[in-house]
Amino acid sequence: MPAYSPDPNDLALKPVGTVVSELTDLKDAPRQGDEGAPEAWLVFDETVRPALQGLTEGSDVLVLTWLDRSDRSVTAVHPRGDTSRPRAGVFSTRSPDRPNPIGLHQVTITSIEELRIRVRNLEALDGTPVLDLKPLLGPTDER
Amino acid sequence: MPAYSPDPNDLALKPVGTVVSELTDLKDAPRQGDEGAPEAWLVFDETVRPALQGLTEGSDVLVLTWLDRSDRSVTAVHPRGDTSRPRAGVFSTRSPDRPNPIGLHQVTITSIEELRIRVRNLEALDGTPVLDLKPLLGPTDER
Repeated sequence: MPAYSPDPNDLALKPVGTVVSELTDLKDAPRQGDEGAPEAWLVFDETVRPALQGLTEGSDVLVLTWLDRSDRSVTAVHPRGDTSRPRAGVFSTRSPDRPNPIGLHQVTITSIEELRIRVRNLEALDGTPVLDLKPLLGPTDER
Repeated sequence: MPAYSPDPNDLALKPVGTVVSELTDLKDAPRQGDEGAPEAWLVFDETVRPALQGLTEGSDVLVLTWLDRSDRSVTAVHPRGDTSRPRAGVFSTRSPDRPNPIGLHQVTITSIEELRIRVRNLEALDGTPVLDLKPLLGPTDER
């Protein structure tokens, strides 16, 4: 049997929603969501309405986004842009500039209005495509 | 100024490496890495060698993969495949079947050999494309 080989044409992301936020400029965005990010909306497409069932206000979830204003050619950076710190490979940092700029954000859901979910602690910019939501993993016997 | 609108052609993932694991069949894979996954290798492409600088043996990191054997049309599932549990939207579950099947795995690095990184607790199948590595986020004053 030949070795398994994925089809590169299948590696296309399909955004399921969009961030609506007062953050519109990279220079105003905090480096992480718990460093002063405002509340923001996640506005989902009608096509994923069934996927939203079961989300609850007050819960903490992971949001995956596509940091579409990133430089995908970057492989090493000064952590947090601080040139006094030695350059590190991007896989050791949370730099948005990286080969696949997937943003990973832990947020708290503050309200749910049909296809619109309001969240606390999201540092992504207005217009950022939303890829996925995932629950945090609790203890193995509560999954 | 017109509203910001991302270019959908930019939403193509470029794998940076591949999982090499003894897990070759979905039916043998545990549901999460801490539920009995074997050690596995992450084999990276030469092009991202600089991005690996700074990773250390013994550290815990997040691996992002593309769960390429998933069904992207699924929006609701019985959690953990247990039909006695009510169906839930996939955004409330860690189901690999979801619109953008990005796998998120917390693993421990056990050894580093140039472009090959051995990790503990990875439930992804052999041949799964690797998208990204990210550090866990510590307290704000240690980032």
